[in-house]
Amino acid sequence: MSKSRMEAFSDGVIAILITIMVLELKAPHATDWSALAPLAPVFVAYVLSFVYLGIYWNNHHHMLHAARKVTGRVLWANLHLLFWLSLLPFATAWMGENHFAALPTALYGAVLLCAAIAYWLLQNSIIAAEGPESTLARAVGTDWKGKASILLYAAAIPLAFVREWLADVVYTGVALLWLVPDRRIEKALAER
Amino acid sequence: MSKSRMEAFSDGVIAILITIMVLELKAPHATDWSALAPLAPVFVAYVLSFVYLGIYWNNHHHMLHAARKVTGRVLWANLHLLFWLSLLPFATAWMGENHFAALPTALYGAVLLCAAIAYWLLQNSIIAAEGPESTLARAVGTDWKGKASILLYAAAIPLAFVREWLADVVYTGVALLWLVPDRRIEKALAER
Amino acid sequence: MSKSRMEAFSDGVIAILITIMVLELKAPHATDWSALAPLAPVFVAYVLSFVYLGIYWNNHHHMLHAARKVTGRVLWANLHLLFWLSLLPFATAWMGENHFAALPTALYGAVLLCAAIAYWLLQNSIIAAEGPESTLARAVGTDWKGKASILLYAAAIPLAFVREWLADVVYTGVALLWLVPDRRIEKALAER
Amino acid sequence: MSKSRMEAFSDGVIAILITIMVLELKAPHATDWSALAPLAPVFVAYVLSFVYLGIYWNNHHHMLHAARKVTGRVLWANLHLLFWLSLLPFATAWMGENHFAALPTALYGAVLLCAAIAYWLLQNSIIAAEGPESTLARAVGTDWKGKASILLYAAAIPLAFVREWLADVVYTGVALLWLVPDRRIEKALAER
Repeated sequence: MSKSRMEAFSDGVIAILITIMVLELKAPHATDWSALAPLAPVFVAYVLSFVYLGIYWNNHHHMLHAARKVTGRVLWANLHLLFWLSLLPFATAWMGENHFAALPTALYGAVLLCAAIAYWLLQNSIIAAEGPESTLARAVGTDWKGKASILLYAAAIPLAFVREWLADVVYTGVALLWLVPDRRIEKALAER
Repeated sequence: MSKSRMEAFSDGVIAILITIMVLELKAPHATDWSALAPLAPVFVAYVLSFVYLGIYWNNHHHMLHAARKVTGRVLWANLHLLFWLSLLPFATAWMGENHFAALPTALYGAVLLCAAIAYWLLQNSIIAAEGPESTLARAVGTDWKGKASILLYAAAIPLAFVREWLADVVYTGVALLWLVPDRRIEKALAER
Repeated sequence: MSKSRMEAFSDGVIAILITIMVLELKAPHATDWSALAPLAPVFVAYVLSFVYLGIYWNNHHHMLHAARKVTGRVLWANLHLLFWLSLLPFATAWMGENHFAALPTALYGAVLLCAAIAYWLLQNSIIAAEGPESTLARAVGTDWKGKASILLYAAAIPLAFVREWLADVVYTGVALLWLVPDRRIEKALAER
Repeated sequence: MSKSRMEAFSDGVIAILITIMVLELKAPHATDWSALAPLAPVFVAYVLSFVYLGIYWNNHHHMLHAARKVTGRVLWANLHLLFWLSLLPFATAWMGENHFAALPTALYGAVLLCAAIAYWLLQNSIIAAEGPESTLARAVGTDWKGKASILLYAAAIPLAFVREWLADVVYTGVALLWLVPDRRIEKALAER
């Protein structure tokens, strides 16, 4: 099976998710500075989710670039990832519009956790199709980043009920961890 | 005619349908657990429709992978399928927001029925263009799954007025029937 | 310049226009048959606009299939067409929600008229780039259909103020004219 | 890394941004001419933003056409550009619905300024990957247009608080500057 349609479909879904999140930024009726103030937490939540969706798109791009085979199982693992990402706009809106209250912040973490697990399952399903000697398998290696992210999200969910900002620190920290460019796949491809 | 634009256009429409359905999950104003409760049926309806759109996308992907020719008739048969799929967000919202009441549940089944018939017509129009000896014709065979789905949806519509949950069982059952991977096309391609 | 990105961008815009039109079909709060009645004109307007966007996508697909060169002028002529098509959801909603009142129906015709002129300009800009001996120029020929559509839309606009349904008859008639498959381009390609 | 997915993703985001802007044109409940009057400034703002997104898409198309390599840094520079463009619908709605009041008009200019800087950073990151002897580097040259646009936006922001229409003149003027076809890249490609 060709991987181009799976890429195109994922691109479409992620592109739309990014842009419908911005619909939560509703134009206020007043036109002074104070009218913008209530939008600040919504905007901050939007920036965080934009960065997360950008990271997912970027990593997805790299992962599929290194992949060669797409099986029926891979297609469903990909749809499973897109399902959790599709809940991000809801979680973002709930968190942003309620000034990062405890439960919405915990739910945001739960969506990130499920998406991270879904990404890991997708990665495994591609490696299973390609074999342990494939470019992707070698590039991923022990995948400490993916595993650490899952643990950190899992820790952030209860933290949101203790001190809400602790969870935000974790979400931001994990995003920064991934923003640092991941050269594993580019390196493995260059070696090939 | 090349099939790539028809694939890209269908990917776009299905990707957008999936993501606009999630807009029905509106962020509540309260931030406690009880605020999430009214969203539960909306969420369940979303999951069901996400799975259905995922199945359609997956099968569409396989079907066009096996196809070679795209005629004007195929383009319109494809648009006809997309028309019925485009009504799924409306039917999902009406069913989910009204706690799976009888008429909305029956309408949901009617949309699924029309989409299944449209898929069958699209399949026939491609086979008509490719000939009975084509990969797709051999892969589809008697297509008992497609025909059984159409009969089951047709049965579920009156059932929704008797006991609403009976219709839900049928919709879920048919989805599970398709989630079990359909290896016919992959097998026929491998044999080629 | 390659034409694939122009195709992909146009596909994206038309796919989104089709799907945001369906957002006007808002799920009613009641769950009986009478709750669906007010949606009937909105649904009829949606079907008409879906068919029109399907025709534009289909013809656009055929036209670009026959084209080889894409210049800067062609890119802008394409954006100009997409601009008028982007107003179709607004015109559809205004007409459908107001039970096909005179002014909204006339505005709908004006958007169709502008889109038809924009399509004709796009066709001319491609033929100008390809030359009068090109496949597209021969396929289009005298283009009586395109010219007749422009005249019919122009006639329908004042008719909407006389008897509103006369304009609807014209819009439906022109759509049927185009639904009859246009074999010119397929024929010209086959001859090549 | 291949550039096709970055193109497809950017096309998707820009196509969706264009079409969600049109959602601000809400169908009025009345059906006479006076019902359309309040939509006039919203429509004018939509046209301006449509043209700007068209210019960005067009230039992005040309720039990537001339590019050969896409690195991780380029992918993030592209996402950074898309982030600022994604704020354009919000700025457009705020400006249009408030009859081009001072602060919304200034904010609109600020979004254009940030997008222009992001475009310039993207261009630099591609040139850095391709080298100073690349087609793109030669085509861009001194890039007076890009630099002049940044200066003009920066000047328009304070002007919006003096006389609001002065800022509008600048935004329209810069758009016209870019609408005049930019033959640099086409020329450099032809020379290659």
